[in-house]
Amino acid sequence: MATIATAVAFPMNNLAMPRGRLTNSGNCLSWRWAVETNNIKYFSNKMPDSCTDYVLSYMLGSQFRHDSKLVCDVAYEYAKGVNLTGDGKDVWIFDVDDTILSCVPYFLEQGSWELNIKSTLGEWTRRGEAQAIPETLDLYKKVMKLGFKIVFITGMHEKESEARIQNLKEAGFTEWEKLIFKGDNELAYAEEFKSNRRKELVEAGYMIWGNIGDQWTDLTGTFVGDRTFKMPNPMYYVP
Amino acid sequence: MATIATAVAFPMNNLAMPRGRLTNSGNCLSWRWAVETNNIKYFSNKMPDSCTDYVLSYMLGSQFRHDSKLVCDVAYEYAKGVNLTGDGKDVWIFDVDDTILSCVPYFLEQGSWELNIKSTLGEWTRRGEAQAIPETLDLYKKVMKLGFKIVFITGMHEKESEARIQNLKEAGFTEWEKLIFKGDNELAYAEEFKSNRRKELVEAGYMIWGNIGDQWTDLTGTFVGDRTFKMPNPMYYVP
Repeated sequence: MATIATAVAFPMNNLAMPRGRLTNSGNCLSWRWAVETNNIKYFSNKMPDSCTDYVLSYMLGSQFRHDSKLVCDVAYEYAKGVNLTGDGKDVWIFDVDDTILSCVPYFLEQGSWELNIKSTLGEWTRRGEAQAIPETLDLYKKVMKLGFKIVFITGMHEKESEARIQNLKEAGFTEWEKLIFKGDNELAYAEEFKSNRRKELVEAGYMIWGNIGDQWTDLTGTFVGDRTFKMPNPMYYVP
Repeated sequence: MATIATAVAFPMNNLAMPRGRLTNSGNCLSWRWAVETNNIKYFSNKMPDSCTDYVLSYMLGSQFRHDSKLVCDVAYEYAKGVNLTGDGKDVWIFDVDDTILSCVPYFLEQGSWELNIKSTLGEWTRRGEAQAIPETLDLYKKVMKLGFKIVFITGMHEKESEARIQNLKEAGFTEWEKLIFKGDNELAYAEEFKSNRRKELVEAGYMIWGNIGDQWTDLTGTFVGDRTFKMPNPMYYVP
């Protein structure tokens, strides 16, 4: 382990030093940290105005790609260490929106971070133009090669399934064991909906190893899997 | 909600653009993101050499203070909204090390991020020189004022209790309902140990509302509380 080269240059009583006015306004790195750690929940349509451009730069810049690559690298390291049962029941779960397909162009088109699930998002989805996030596409291919069965669980409703399947295939996601949509009239929130579907998988004999999603509600609840992986998404929160 | 001012300047097919070599080495912001989101676990003594100085700058700089202040602000907002039972059983749990008392000087003295729990950390702890983290000290005072009972649950062993109590009082943490140490011979890992203690609290009639800690293992397991809050700590991981 490397020593800390700069240690001597810092005073020991650092916390006692005045730091001027510690306001959070404008500190969008703090804000991103707080939403990514699940400290701030339900932040959709509540992003601080001062951070809207910061979030765009993040999503379109190299930091999002770096963050995505690192979590996918860590997930793949984990995947390689799994002792697969080999009975065809070893599962890796992927969420869809902003985990494997990017919705950023939707927000760009709209010019705001508002998530209008019931109106414009559906229209955009039906156009089927979503692009793959390269890092999770790569992870998808690699865990499949290791022998995991792929299960997609998406909060998108059944009525979007035709356009979505076409879009997934065009984006490179050509194979799966199951592709689970939300029922058109299903009212459960994401955590409950996804927990229920994972429960069904486990009851059907599947072993859920990895589970990757951009929302904490993809990764919390019950039957979450042996390891969960959080993809970066400071754009919106799905309750 | 503000519109995204810079949206038009970005191309729509951003993800297809080549980004050069996406290596993670040297991208310490990604590394910090990955440990703070619990994507990378068990990273103690495995911090990339290239990030040791970055982490020191973070811990001693204003970003750590900003991040700490934001999570404490969010926690206090939540606390204000809680409908206290008023029976003296409404609890707020604080972890101790690097949640309310800073261990940074220990690492500075040592000149590395190695966490030597069984040797040097104990010696340093017994000197009782740990300083309060101002943001959580403030949260502690404020939630107490709202009527919450304070319970400290620390992974420190009983044998350090005398020095630790003295240190806590000198640092400004003068009152508590319970201060729970780990038994000197207790072998359970943090998540199990803390879950067991929280279970005992609940069985004794306490309602755990808030629970704040710098380690994910403070906040996962069972009886975690109504809301959990993750303090920043990219220095080490307690399993």
